[in-house]
Amino acid sequence: MPQTIDLNADLGEGVGDDDAMLTIVTSANIACGFHAGSPTLLARTCAQAHRRGVAIGAQVSYPDREGFGRRYMAMDPEDLRADIVYQIGALTALASATGARVTYVKPHGALYNTVVADEEQAAAVVAAVRSVDPGLAVMGLPRSLVLDLARDAGLPVITEAFADRGYRPDGTLVPRTEAGALLTDSAQIARRVVDLVTTGTLTAVDGSTITVDAESVCLHGDTPGAVEHAMATRAALLGAGVDLSAIARG
Amino acid sequence: MPQTIDLNADLGEGVGDDDAMLTIVTSANIACGFHAGSPTLLARTCAQAHRRGVAIGAQVSYPDREGFGRRYMAMDPEDLRADIVYQIGALTALASATGARVTYVKPHGALYNTVVADEEQAAAVVAAVRSVDPGLAVMGLPRSLVLDLARDAGLPVITEAFADRGYRPDGTLVPRTEAGALLTDSAQIARRVVDLVTTGTLTAVDGSTITVDAESVCLHGDTPGAVEHAMATRAALLGAGVDLSAIARG
Amino acid sequence: MPQTIDLNADLGEGVGDDDAMLTIVTSANIACGFHAGSPTLLARTCAQAHRRGVAIGAQVSYPDREGFGRRYMAMDPEDLRADIVYQIGALTALASATGARVTYVKPHGALYNTVVADEEQAAAVVAAVRSVDPGLAVMGLPRSLVLDLARDAGLPVITEAFADRGYRPDGTLVPRTEAGALLTDSAQIARRVVDLVTTGTLTAVDGSTITVDAESVCLHGDTPGAVEHAMATRAALLGAGVDLSAIARG
Amino acid sequence: MPQTIDLNADLGEGVGDDDAMLTIVTSANIACGFHAGSPTLLARTCAQAHRRGVAIGAQVSYPDREGFGRRYMAMDPEDLRADIVYQIGALTALASATGARVTYVKPHGALYNTVVADEEQAAAVVAAVRSVDPGLAVMGLPRSLVLDLARDAGLPVITEAFADRGYRPDGTLVPRTEAGALLTDSAQIARRVVDLVTTGTLTAVDGSTITVDAESVCLHGDTPGAVEHAMATRAALLGAGVDLSAIARG
Repeated sequence: MPQTIDLNADLGEGVGDDDAMLTIVTSANIACGFHAGSPTLLARTCAQAHRRGVAIGAQVSYPDREGFGRRYMAMDPEDLRADIVYQIGALTALASATGARVTYVKPHGALYNTVVADEEQAAAVVAAVRSVDPGLAVMGLPRSLVLDLARDAGLPVITEAFADRGYRPDGTLVPRTEAGALLTDSAQIARRVVDLVTTGTLTAVDGSTITVDAESVCLHGDTPGAVEHAMATRAALLGAGVDLSAIARG
Repeated sequence: MPQTIDLNADLGEGVGDDDAMLTIVTSANIACGFHAGSPTLLARTCAQAHRRGVAIGAQVSYPDREGFGRRYMAMDPEDLRADIVYQIGALTALASATGARVTYVKPHGALYNTVVADEEQAAAVVAAVRSVDPGLAVMGLPRSLVLDLARDAGLPVITEAFADRGYRPDGTLVPRTEAGALLTDSAQIARRVVDLVTTGTLTAVDGSTITVDAESVCLHGDTPGAVEHAMATRAALLGAGVDLSAIARG
Repeated sequence: MPQTIDLNADLGEGVGDDDAMLTIVTSANIACGFHAGSPTLLARTCAQAHRRGVAIGAQVSYPDREGFGRRYMAMDPEDLRADIVYQIGALTALASATGARVTYVKPHGALYNTVVADEEQAAAVVAAVRSVDPGLAVMGLPRSLVLDLARDAGLPVITEAFADRGYRPDGTLVPRTEAGALLTDSAQIARRVVDLVTTGTLTAVDGSTITVDAESVCLHGDTPGAVEHAMATRAALLGAGVDLSAIARG
Repeated sequence: MPQTIDLNADLGEGVGDDDAMLTIVTSANIACGFHAGSPTLLARTCAQAHRRGVAIGAQVSYPDREGFGRRYMAMDPEDLRADIVYQIGALTALASATGARVTYVKPHGALYNTVVADEEQAAAVVAAVRSVDPGLAVMGLPRSLVLDLARDAGLPVITEAFADRGYRPDGTLVPRTEAGALLTDSAQIARRVVDLVTTGTLTAVDGSTITVDAESVCLHGDTPGAVEHAMATRAALLGAGVDLSAIARG
């Protein structure tokens, strides 16, 4: 029986080559305007994703365009919840105006990292998603509070791994300030993802083999060589007989 | 058979006394964040409106918080359409998270005035509303391109008059820069609205009697004496045996 | 020899009664657009302050209009520094266009609290002020890292106390979530400020007498009864023979 | 005696290759945050321009990040003036924090086109520049109301031509929607600029020769081939013995 994996990338941010990435991924995390993206760009990106059969996720963020959503904000849960409902609703309407559907939600940037461990903010994200549509999945790290709370609330979840990031022996990512944080060789990235999908394991930064439970693999679209890495990864997966398919289909 | 009128006001803008106005009106034009209002304030206003049985409309605007949406913007139709879809979607999700529904759309400020006569922008507004939900009504001036195009597109429309604005003999409003633009006496405003509802006519600024076809009356909530005018108007209508009821009910 | 005190308040935020407060205070902390205030409102507020002989301070903030600058943001020092330089520069130009001058800088909201103890952000604020004009004073709590670093950098500093806030025995403010955080009686607030100015001491929340070293007293302009409290305080100080005068004069 | 020309380009917008353009131009029109650019990016761009001896201009815009400043806004002159003062002040402070100076102002996008003929907005721009510093030059089209009013107000002006735009026989630009609006061949663009500088004439879209009075030539930095066109133009000018030098030097 062939193995299956979802490939996701951040799109609609006005950076990177969205057209190319949409030929590679099976799920598009589309910005919602709070860290990047105008309504027009978001609408166009939804339409393109829909045309290509790529699933659409709402990439929700702190309200911080200046900082591209990359700065932690000590938001009141009521505010965070309202901001996330607002963003999902906005993208849902843009998507549905093109005949498409938002099927999952992925926190962006600093919010992504915060809801791994911050219970108040993780709970606000889950409550927001649930209040819009309890059929929406939440995408995040396998071991994260936000996914635990989402499961408890009955929401579908999508676990993900990162194609080009180094892992520590405990399964967490090597911080960007440390050596081994970022892989930059296309062939190595592709091989690593194939290994991950076919064996469920990765080689951590210390050389040890670790288990990583991921239904989706995040490909970066805006780093140098991003499209090349993504194409190599896709080709390697197909060559290894892996099926590529979105988890949360429209 | 008793006559019926809808009373509407702009809310969720962080100005004026929303709590008081929600005890008076039957329809709340709630801001969507593009000219005013944070997601939290919009969510709270939706919840309060819903608790009081007040219908909820999306008050859509140009993206101009600095100018409170009061400045004409030469927007490309594609951009305007995407901006309006975005706003309706955002408010819809906030409303539905409280169990409420958005039932109509009312353009705000400069956009309201522009779509009276600008075909391109009026068509963009109508296309936006229709693409989100063809059951949404559009509120505007009886003689306006946006309502004509909405009717042509099969959308419900709600015609409205202004309680405290002077009218010219041709049925248009006296510009704010001219004498007679604004009525400031509560008793006079109330009497005028009762006359309008019971006779379908108003006294224009030149003393002539004109016909005004309005299913809803807009009460201002943020001008000096606004709440007093609104309360007097509501009391006078009830005293005259007029039923107060939203046109677009949730 | 008469004692002297500066009275300051937050203005240009589009909330509260700025006109009234400008007849009471000797220093105006004018918003810079990052948490509140349009350029036009800031320009008008600078002009009114100047006409009344009120000193002008730049009230700098995190870039967070949605949250009114009240939410901590984990900003990179380079970003925070650039944001503060930008804000001081903008207000300086608006002030100078009316013949006025910005003479001091006061952090707002969450930034005010953060730079009491966060060395990185406090240093960024001091570096920003210094790079614009080493003659600009920094206003803050007597015991705060930002004033320590400002003194070390050779900048003038202005220590301040809060007229309507409860103090703990160690000289810190009672958190707003605790009993005794806020004083609401005009007479009591006025008496407390007179005592503070004439004796250098306050009664803390536990009844003990503490020393508070303040050259300026912050009056709130946007809380219920704010103008009344401020007028009572001003009258009581004048009645006690205290001179009212800005520290950082234009 | 060698001829001299200034080469200018829009920078600090987060698009295009600023580093490359700073090796080519003699004047940098740096965004001020109203249509693009974070304070940090603006600060860095000022510092880089200063290091390379490139003059710094404030590229002021309507407050329209969503539309990149490309949409006309019907702004009240008081608002427009305050917005422009705010922007110049912000960039001036960022520049001066790196030891640099803003020496001129260039309106951006829709504002650039509007002040060619709209007296109210042109006057607001000139009044804004003058109130900040009457030594600041205004850059614009040779035949434009904004330059006429700037001259009347005693401000220095800098006339400019566009390297890659087609001209009509009357000296105005071919609208972007018409054939011949944009030149795309590096060699042709370079030759055209050399001709313009050495002869004061251009070949218009109808083949006629027209006189264009320009002290500066605008090179685009963010279109396909932009850097290549710019480098070719610079090389051709130097090859023709033309001196490259900013008009408004720091």
